[in-house]
Amino acid sequence: MALLTELGTEIAIPVCAVIGIIFSLVQWYIVSRVKVTPESAASATKNGKNGYSDYLIEEEEGINDQSVVAKCAEIQNAISEGATSFLFTEYQYVGIFMVAFAILIFLFLGSVEGFSTKNAPCTYDKEKLCKPALATALFSTVSFVLGAITSVVSGFLGMKIATYANARTTLEARKGVGKAFIVAFRSGAVMGFLLAANGLLVLYITINVFKIYYGDDWEGLFEAITGYGLGGSSMALFGRVGGGIYTKAADVGADLVGKVERNIPEDDPRNPAVIADNVGDNVGDIAGMGSDLFGSYAEASCAALVVASISSFGMTHDFTAMCYPLLISSMGILVCLITTLFATDFFEIKAVKEIEPALKNQLIISTILMTVGIAIVTWTCLPSSFTIFNFGAQKVVKNWQLFLCVCVGLWAGLIIGFVTEYYTSNAYSPVQDVADSCRTGAATNVIFGLALGYKSVIIPIFAIAVSIFISFTFAAMYGIAVAALGMLSTIATGLAIDAYGPISDNAGGIAEMAGMSHRIRERTDALDAAGNTTAAIGKGFAIGSAALVSLALFGAFVSRAAISTVDVLTPKVFIGLIVGAMLPYWFSAMTMKSVGSAALKMVEEVRRQFNTIPGLMEGLAKPDYATCVKISTDASIKEMIPPGALVMLTPLIVGIFFGVETLSGVLAGSLVSGVQIAISASNTGGAWDNAKKYIEAGASEHARTLGPKGSEPHKAAVIGDTIGDPLKDTSGPSLNILIKLMAVESLVFAPFFATHGGLLFKIWG
Amino acid sequence: MALLTELGTEIAIPVCAVIGIIFSLVQWYIVSRVKVTPESAASATKNGKNGYSDYLIEEEEGINDQSVVAKCAEIQNAISEGATSFLFTEYQYVGIFMVAFAILIFLFLGSVEGFSTKNAPCTYDKEKLCKPALATALFSTVSFVLGAITSVVSGFLGMKIATYANARTTLEARKGVGKAFIVAFRSGAVMGFLLAANGLLVLYITINVFKIYYGDDWEGLFEAITGYGLGGSSMALFGRVGGGIYTKAADVGADLVGKVERNIPEDDPRNPAVIADNVGDNVGDIAGMGSDLFGSYAEASCAALVVASISSFGMTHDFTAMCYPLLISSMGILVCLITTLFATDFFEIKAVKEIEPALKNQLIISTILMTVGIAIVTWTCLPSSFTIFNFGAQKVVKNWQLFLCVCVGLWAGLIIGFVTEYYTSNAYSPVQDVADSCRTGAATNVIFGLALGYKSVIIPIFAIAVSIFISFTFAAMYGIAVAALGMLSTIATGLAIDAYGPISDNAGGIAEMAGMSHRIRERTDALDAAGNTTAAIGKGFAIGSAALVSLALFGAFVSRAAISTVDVLTPKVFIGLIVGAMLPYWFSAMTMKSVGSAALKMVEEVRRQFNTIPGLMEGLAKPDYATCVKISTDASIKEMIPPGALVMLTPLIVGIFFGVETLSGVLAGSLVSGVQIAISASNTGGAWDNAKKYIEAGASEHARTLGPKGSEPHKAAVIGDTIGDPLKDTSGPSLNILIKLMAVESLVFAPFFATHGGLLFKIWG
Repeated sequence: MALLTELGTEIAIPVCAVIGIIFSLVQWYIVSRVKVTPESAASATKNGKNGYSDYLIEEEEGINDQSVVAKCAEIQNAISEGATSFLFTEYQYVGIFMVAFAILIFLFLGSVEGFSTKNAPCTYDKEKLCKPALATALFSTVSFVLGAITSVVSGFLGMKIATYANARTTLEARKGVGKAFIVAFRSGAVMGFLLAANGLLVLYITINVFKIYYGDDWEGLFEAITGYGLGGSSMALFGRVGGGIYTKAADVGADLVGKVERNIPEDDPRNPAVIADNVGDNVGDIAGMGSDLFGSYAEASCAALVVASISSFGMTHDFTAMCYPLLISSMGILVCLITTLFATDFFEIKAVKEIEPALKNQLIISTILMTVGIAIVTWTCLPSSFTIFNFGAQKVVKNWQLFLCVCVGLWAGLIIGFVTEYYTSNAYSPVQDVADSCRTGAATNVIFGLALGYKSVIIPIFAIAVSIFISFTFAAMYGIAVAALGMLSTIATGLAIDAYGPISDNAGGIAEMAGMSHRIRERTDALDAAGNTTAAIGKGFAIGSAALVSLALFGAFVSRAAISTVDVLTPKVFIGLIVGAMLPYWFSAMTMKSVGSAALKMVEEVRRQFNTIPGLMEGLAKPDYATCVKISTDASIKEMIPPGALVMLTPLIVGIFFGVETLSGVLAGSLVSGVQIAISASNTGGAWDNAKKYIEAGASEHARTLGPKGSEPHKAAVIGDTIGDPLKDTSGPSLNILIKLMAVESLVFAPFFATHGGLLFKIWG
Repeated sequence: MALLTELGTEIAIPVCAVIGIIFSLVQWYIVSRVKVTPESAASATKNGKNGYSDYLIEEEEGINDQSVVAKCAEIQNAISEGATSFLFTEYQYVGIFMVAFAILIFLFLGSVEGFSTKNAPCTYDKEKLCKPALATALFSTVSFVLGAITSVVSGFLGMKIATYANARTTLEARKGVGKAFIVAFRSGAVMGFLLAANGLLVLYITINVFKIYYGDDWEGLFEAITGYGLGGSSMALFGRVGGGIYTKAADVGADLVGKVERNIPEDDPRNPAVIADNVGDNVGDIAGMGSDLFGSYAEASCAALVVASISSFGMTHDFTAMCYPLLISSMGILVCLITTLFATDFFEIKAVKEIEPALKNQLIISTILMTVGIAIVTWTCLPSSFTIFNFGAQKVVKNWQLFLCVCVGLWAGLIIGFVTEYYTSNAYSPVQDVADSCRTGAATNVIFGLALGYKSVIIPIFAIAVSIFISFTFAAMYGIAVAALGMLSTIATGLAIDAYGPISDNAGGIAEMAGMSHRIRERTDALDAAGNTTAAIGKGFAIGSAALVSLALFGAFVSRAAISTVDVLTPKVFIGLIVGAMLPYWFSAMTMKSVGSAALKMVEEVRRQFNTIPGLMEGLAKPDYATCVKISTDASIKEMIPPGALVMLTPLIVGIFFGVETLSGVLAGSLVSGVQIAISASNTGGAWDNAKKYIEAGASEHARTLGPKGSEPHKAAVIGDTIGDPLKDTSGPSLNILIKLMAVESLVFAPFFATHGGLLFKIWG
C-alpha cells in the first residue's frame, strides 16, 4: 500500500539512528582535538600557538599559556568529578525507586486478570485472542526498565560531554568568539544526536524483540511498549527536580553571599559555592533537560504507537505505516544533521552579534527542512487513507491530513520559540521595560516581571490550542500524538542549542576561576547571553511538546481505560479537574521551598567559610569547595523525594480510590493549569535574568542610565534574577514532567484502574 | 406540602429584609453619636471629657481636644470627598457601559426568535406555552439594570459609612481600644446588613413584579431574573478592578517614595499620596468588596432560582419551595443580627489581644447558629422529597440531602477562612518562616512568600472539591447553587468583619495625619493588624463562594444552552478548557501591569512634590494631595477598561464564533485555573504584609532578632509587602469576578449563543 516496504522500514530506522550516533561521535572527536592536558600544551608550544597560526590573547598579554591550560583542566576536573559523583548518588536512590516501581508495575498489571497465563479475547477485536495480561505486565516492566536506563544514560552522557567541552570552550575563546562558539555548539550537538539516535534505536530494537513473542498481537505489543515512556519520564522527573534543586541551591546561595554581601563577581574562585554552582549547571540544565526531552520523545512515540495499534493499519499489520512515528524521528535526525552543518561548516561566526542569529537560524532551517522531510515520510510510508480509533468510533483520515497534523506541531514549536525569545531577550521592549522598572526598586521589578510572565502565556497557549484543534479534528488522539512528535522531530537541533547554553556558562565560570583576562570573559559572556535566550526557547519547546504529549497520553489512557466521554458535568470528573489544576501549585510550593531552604543552608556555609578561613577574601587561601558540593547534593537528594512522590503517587491513589473518571479529570486539570504556570515561570525567570544582563552590559543609552553594576537599579535587578532562579530552572521546567508523567503512568496502569480502581465509590455507591 | 404557606413566605422574606435594614440604621445611629464637629466638641467640653466620664488620652497629655477633633474632621472630609468624587467619575463611565450593555442584552436576546411577540412552547415542557423570547429580553434587561444599580448603591453606601466612621474610630481610640473596636465593627455591620437586606429585598420585589406579567411561566420568569446577577457582577468587576488599581497605585506609590526613599512613616501627612492611599482603601476594599460580594450573592440566588424553576416544585408552582434560596438568605440576616450582638453588646473588648478572637468568634458563632437556621428553613419550606433537573434527566432529592448541601457550603467557608488565617496571620509558623527568610534579603522573602501562597491553595481546594462532590451528587447544580448560598448566608457578618479592616486602617491613617499621640496609633494599629487577617479571611470566603457560584452558573448555562455533556475529549471543548485556563493569567498580567504603571506615575509626582515644594519634608508646607488623587483616579478609570473588556467580551466572542461547547470549556478552564491563582495571590500578599508587621511589632524574641524598623530584614519585608499589594488587592480578588461574571454572562446569553452562535464552525463544518 505504501511506497516504503516493510523491509525498507526495517532498514531505514536503524540506519538513520546509526548515522546519528556516528555523526555525534565525529563531533566529539573534533571537540577532543582541543587539548587541555599539560603534555599537549607542551607539545603545542613547540610549533607555537597551540597548533594554530593566529595569536592567542594570553600570549599577546604574556601570560604563561601552560599554567592557564593546567588551571582550566584542573577546574574542569573538579566540575566533572562533582557532577559525576552527584549523578551516581542520585542514580543510587533512583535505582531503588526504579526496582520498587518495576515490581509494582508487574504486580498491578499482572493482577488485572488474576495472573492468568491464558490468552484472552482482545479489547478492541473480540474475535481474536490476545496475549495474557501477565505477559503485558512482564513486558511493560521490561520496557519500563529499558526506558529508565536509556533516560539515565542520555542524561549522563550529556553531562559527560558538557563537562568535557566547557574548559575547551574557554581555551578556544582565546582564539576568538567564533572558535569558542563552534566548540560549544558541537558539544551540544554530540548530546543532541546521541540522545535522539539512542532513544530511537533502543525503542526500535525493543519493538522488534517484543514482536518475536507477541507476533500478531500488536495491541498487546504496543501497550507493553508504553512502559518505555513511563521509564523515561520517571527518571526525568528525578533528574529535573533533583538537578534543579541542586543547581539553584548552589546558584542562589553563591549569589546571596558573593554578589550581594561580599560584592565579589559571579564565579569568583574565592566563593566556596562556585564549583557547586558550575556542577549544578551540568546536572540540572544538561542531564535534567536531556532526560526531560528524552522522556517527551519516548512518550510521544509510545502514545502514537498505542493509538496506531488499534487503527486500520494496526489491524492489517502494515508495519511501515505503524512505524510512521519512528520514521518521522529518523527523518528528523537526518534533517538536524544537515541543519547542524549550517552552524559548524557552511558559515562561520565572526562577531558577537552573529551568535544569536546563528542559533535562531538553526531553528528556522530545521523547521523548514523538516516540513519537506515530513512530506516525504508521509507520502512514502502512509496509505492515502486509513481509519483511526476515536473513543469508541472509527475515524477516516487522509494522509495529507496527517501531514498537516505533524506540521502544525512543528510550526507551533517555532512560534512558541519566537514568542519566548521576544519575552525573554533583552533586545525587545518587554525585558527592557522590566529593566526600566528597576529604577523604583526591586518591588516594581518583581511586579513587572510577574506580569510579563503571565502575559507571555497568551500566544503560546493560542498556538497550542490551534495545534490541538487541527490535529484533534483531523486525526483524533493520533493527530495530537504526531503533532507532538512533529514538535520534537528536530529534537537533536533543539538539544544542541539548549546544551550550548550551560556549556558556555561553564566556560565563562572557568575563565573567571582560572584568572584569564577580561577579554576572554567578555567573549564567553557573549556566548552565555545568547545561551540564556536559547535556553528559554528550549524550555518553551519542552513545555509546548509536553502539553501535546500529555494530551495524547491522556487520550490513549481514556481509550485503554474504556471510557468514552470525560464529562465535566459529573461530580467525579469535576472534582478531579479542580484538584488536578491545584497539583502544579502544590508541586511548585514544594520545589520552591526546597530551593529556598537549601539555599539558606548554602548561605550559612559560605558565610561560615568567609568568616573562619583566614585570607579567603584576599585570595590567599583556598575555600572548601567540597562542603558546598555536599550541601547541594544532600539537599537535592532529600528534597526531590516529596515532589517526586506527589507526582508518582497521585495517579495511583486517585485511580485506586476514585477510579478512572476522576483520574481523567485530574489529568485534564493538571494539564491545562500546569502548562500556564510552567510557561509563565520560565519566562518570568528568563526575563529577570536578561534584564539584569541588560543593565550589566550597558549596550544602549537607556541601559547605561540604569547601570553600572552595583547601582541601585542593578541591585534591584539582581534580586529579581535570584527570585527567578528557582522559577525558571526548578519549578517551571519540572512541571512539564508533572503533567506528562501523571498521564503516562495513568496510561500504563489503565487496565488495573479500570478493573480494580474506584474503591471509594464502590463502597459509597 | 411545606409547613410555611405561600402567604407566610410572602411575609417572611420582606420582614427579614426590613429587620436587616432597621438594624443597620440603628447601628448607624449609634456610630453617629460620636461627634466629630467642633460644635459638639464645644458642647462636650462643657460637661468635660466629650460626654464620657473617663479621661481621654489627649486630655491627660494636655493636647487641645477641639483642634484634634477639627483636624480629624477635616481629614475625614478630604477622604470622603476624594472617594465620593472618584466613585462618581467611575459611575459615569460605568453608566455608559451599563446602558450600552443593556441595549446589547435586549437586542441579542430579542433576536433569538426574531423579535417575535408570540408565545412559544416552553423549553422543558413542550406541552405548555411560554412567554416570547422578546419578553425575556426585555425583563432580562430590566433586571440587569436593577442588579447594576443595587450593586452600585451597595458599594456607595458602604463607602459612605466607612468614611463616616473612620475619624470616629480614631476619636474613640482615645478612650480605649474596646470603644474604638466597637465603632469600627458597628460601621462594618451597617454595611453588611444594608447590603444583605437590600440585595434580598430588591430581588424579592423584582420577582413579585415580574410575576404579574409572567404568571405561570416560571421558566421565563427566572430566566429573566438572571439579568440581576449579571448586573450586580458587571458593576462589581469595574468596582473591584478600578478600585483595586486606585488603591494600590496610591499605596505602592506612597510607600516607594515615603517609606523607602524618604524614610518617613506610613500615613505621614507630608507624603502627598497619603490622602489618595486612604481614599483607595474606601473605594477598593470597601466599595469594591461590597459590590463583589453582592454580585456573588445575587448570582448564587439567580443560579439556584433558574435551576429550581424547572424542578418539580417549579413545575407545580410551590412558591415557598421555590423561594428556598431567598428564605435561606432571610434566615441569614436574623442569624447575623444575633451574632453581631455577641461582639457589640454581650461581650466587651478590653485588651488588644481580645480583638482577633472576637472577630473569629463572629465567624464560628454565625456558622453554628446558621446550621440550625438552615435546618429550620429546610424542614419548614421544602417538601420532603422533590425532583431536580439534571442535564436532561430528573433526579430525586430528599430535603435532608438539600440541608446537607447548604451546610457543606457553609462549613467549607469556615474551613477556608481558618486555613487562610493560618497562612496569613503572623501568629503561626508559615508567616514567621517568611519573615525569617528576610534575613537573607528580599529574594528569599519573595521565594518563600510565593511558595506559601502556592501551598495555601491545597486545603481550600480540597474543601471546595468535597463541597462540590457532596452537593453535586445529592442535588446536581441546584445543590451547588445552594451550597454557594450556604457559604454566603452569613454574608452580613462576613462583610461586617471585612469592612472593619479598612475602617481601622483609615482610623490609623487619620491618627497619624492629625498628629495624635503614639498611644492612639498603637491602638489603631492593633485594630488594623486584626483587620489584615480578617480581610484575608474575607477574600478566602469571596473566592470559595465564587468557585461554587461559577460552577452553579456554569451548570445553569449548560442546561439553558441545551447541552447535555461537556466532553473534554472533543477538540471544541478542550481548546476552550486550555484557553479558559489561560485567561486568569492574561487578566492578572493586565491588572498588575496597570498597578505598576500607575504606581510609577505616582512615584514621579510624589518625588516632584518633595523636590519642588520648599519646606515639605520639614512639615512647614502642605503637599498637593489633589494631584495624587487625580493621578490615581485617571489611571484607574483608564486602566480598568482593558481587563474589563477582556472579561466582558470573551464569552460574547467565544459564544458567537465558537459556540456553546467551546464556551463551556472556557468557563470550566477559567474556573479551575482562576480559583488557584486567586487564592495563592491573596494569601501570598497577606502573608508578606503580616510578615512585615511581625517584624515591626517585634512582639517575640524571634521577631526582635529581625527588627527593628529600618533593619535590613525589615527592608526586605517592605519589598515583599509592596509586591504583595497588587496581588492581594487588585489581581487576586478581581479574579473571583472574572470567573463568576463570564459564567453569568454566558447564562444570560445562552439562548442567543445556542441559536446564533458558533459561526466559525458553521462556516468550517
